[in-house]
Amino acid sequence: MTRTPEDLLDLTCSLLPEVRAQAPLVQCITNGVVAGFTANVLLALGASAAMVDVPGEAGPFARVASGLLINVGTPHAEQRQAMSEAVAAAAEAGTPWVLDPVAVGSLPVRTPLALTLGERGAAVIRGNASEIIAMAGSGEGGRGVDASDDVERAIAPARALAERTGAVVAVSGPIDAVTDGAEVARVGNGHALLTKVTGGGCALGAVMAAFAGTGADPLAAAVAATTVYTVAAELAAERAPGPGSFAVAFVDALAAVDAADLRERAVLS
Amino acid sequence: MTRTPEDLLDLTCSLLPEVRAQAPLVQCITNGVVAGFTANVLLALGASAAMVDVPGEAGPFARVASGLLINVGTPHAEQRQAMSEAVAAAAEAGTPWVLDPVAVGSLPVRTPLALTLGERGAAVIRGNASEIIAMAGSGEGGRGVDASDDVERAIAPARALAERTGAVVAVSGPIDAVTDGAEVARVGNGHALLTKVTGGGCALGAVMAAFAGTGADPLAAAVAATTVYTVAAELAAERAPGPGSFAVAFVDALAAVDAADLRERAVLS
Amino acid sequence: MTRTPEDLLDLTCSLLPEVRAQAPLVQCITNGVVAGFTANVLLALGASAAMVDVPGEAGPFARVASGLLINVGTPHAEQRQAMSEAVAAAAEAGTPWVLDPVAVGSLPVRTPLALTLGERGAAVIRGNASEIIAMAGSGEGGRGVDASDDVERAIAPARALAERTGAVVAVSGPIDAVTDGAEVARVGNGHALLTKVTGGGCALGAVMAAFAGTGADPLAAAVAATTVYTVAAELAAERAPGPGSFAVAFVDALAAVDAADLRERAVLS
Repeated sequence: MTRTPEDLLDLTCSLLPEVRAQAPLVQCITNGVVAGFTANVLLALGASAAMVDVPGEAGPFARVASGLLINVGTPHAEQRQAMSEAVAAAAEAGTPWVLDPVAVGSLPVRTPLALTLGERGAAVIRGNASEIIAMAGSGEGGRGVDASDDVERAIAPARALAERTGAVVAVSGPIDAVTDGAEVARVGNGHALLTKVTGGGCALGAVMAAFAGTGADPLAAAVAATTVYTVAAELAAERAPGPGSFAVAFVDALAAVDAADLRERAVLS
Repeated sequence: MTRTPEDLLDLTCSLLPEVRAQAPLVQCITNGVVAGFTANVLLALGASAAMVDVPGEAGPFARVASGLLINVGTPHAEQRQAMSEAVAAAAEAGTPWVLDPVAVGSLPVRTPLALTLGERGAAVIRGNASEIIAMAGSGEGGRGVDASDDVERAIAPARALAERTGAVVAVSGPIDAVTDGAEVARVGNGHALLTKVTGGGCALGAVMAAFAGTGADPLAAAVAATTVYTVAAELAAERAPGPGSFAVAFVDALAAVDAADLRERAVLS
Repeated sequence: MTRTPEDLLDLTCSLLPEVRAQAPLVQCITNGVVAGFTANVLLALGASAAMVDVPGEAGPFARVASGLLINVGTPHAEQRQAMSEAVAAAAEAGTPWVLDPVAVGSLPVRTPLALTLGERGAAVIRGNASEIIAMAGSGEGGRGVDASDDVERAIAPARALAERTGAVVAVSGPIDAVTDGAEVARVGNGHALLTKVTGGGCALGAVMAAFAGTGADPLAAAVAATTVYTVAAELAAERAPGPGSFAVAFVDALAAVDAADLRERAVLS
């Protein structure tokens, strides 16, 4: 039943126009630092974005959204309540949701929050190696949002986390890895400038929610989102002398990237 | 007493330098997703921006601000309190204010909030067709922040809303409409890329508050703001290959747009 | 013991590669309007950024961060609590921190907050002339975030504030001044476009925290940060037709600026 890299590339090439045709509505409960960039990334890709994150609204909205992102980057009290409410509603309504455990490890508010949310049926859990290792219970987490662990070291914890939670687990890094516990797909695209733009990782979680919101299975959604995102980053880096112009070119590239770019550049394994 | 399109264009051309000369101070109580973009739009235009949105400060600041924007996009508890406080102070001090009922319709926190605020003397209520229809009580509102109703279908509800509240009502869309209940002015400028930038609509509300903050009457302020904003969008779109570069070029264009551009391009009717 | 402008330029040229080599982790408790821009400025410069601003996390994080920024621009209740917690932890752990008293003067929440925080051992207090005069207790503050007082008028209050609090005090304006109460250094670089980008001043506070986070003394850190920042602004302005493109070019310039640029352009006195 394992899909080959060729299968995953075909899926990616068919899911990208699907996102643009369906314009899935992605509800984001995310940190304030990256909210604007995240919305712009979703809009450029062809999805719709709505940052509905107040208690009392987060639940009802999660029932009608196509996909949901929960990012614990700045977990203020109202957001925490909104997250719990949205996750419950998503579970009932069948809305696929993505958990981004930003900087989870030792920080005492977000760590138990993310661990609890992680048991509640996320379609995808996406983080850097440190964060995934912390979610799996096998490390101390990193310093802030930087990955201080290698992706390859995180593969076994990622598989264990996937098996325990039922979520597909995606580990971001120079080579991204995505696993459902059984198969492990790797995406070798991307560019270091993406790490110099705040929200470079956070917005990828939203893009995964957009792909999952088309009805794609979580592994295909996570691989397709990662491939489209990191190929767009490569296209942008060719036109950008620095991180400021890269962020702009990246948004442009997300709107322009197509199957031909993906087939020419994708490094799936 | 109805003004012709030529009158409104003349007014627009005289109000733009007035904004730049006076640098009206616009207080924004707005959603966190678009706050940075909104401030940059105001600064580029020549206005001043201050996001004073905490209870205890929102009221005192609204007394000294030139104009006030209330945007209900992420209505957290403190913001709701700050909105109420600011609106009361604006009414007492005569500070003109703009209400943007983002995604109002069925969402249970912002909908009663916006309906209540709408009765408290806004100079302008600005939204897309779905939002204005919802404010008028004649529809169910849209999905999130996208307009799923046509502007023309919203004209009658907009007039009714204007008559009921005393506010000028502005409906954004491919053709923008502005009404005080009696006359209806239309602005035919703009570009689809504006819908691909988060805050594209929200920042227009702030620009309306800046124009109203010069002392212009609300209908003239709303028409002038819409015309300047959408002509700048056209200028930007000519230089932008995608939504990322468009957002940058748009801010540049707001700083550069002048009466000659307006006279050459404005499509008022 | 007073350092000459040449000494300060030498220090600046040696501290910039130090920031890039150490990548100091800067915790920012800052206003939501500028959080994204501030993070991007830090990342471009070569520092790390983490906006850890919830109670319960702000303190523990301040113990491990290299530097801390406290910016009172949107002082919501949780942020106020997080600020107090972080400042206490920073004092215990020896983490240098920067206070940015945005729009302090007459606003009744942030003014007592900033005055209280100002007595708790900041390494640097950074503001425009109005804000520094207000912090020194010798004026009424400005309208919002614009400087309505001249830098030179703020020098005596800045010295008094430095003497009272033990902090280095930095006054931003066309010519920036930095004082420890005894010596006063001036930086004559910069560009007016920086005042047209929201966060243009706020992000400078974060950059000062990054430089202080390398272990540099506060006066050297404040002067070096100001010089690097304002020289980058000059480089950016040469390539930018307006404030939108300036903001992008500025982030690029922060990543590219080097000792040769500093030696060619810095105007220290």
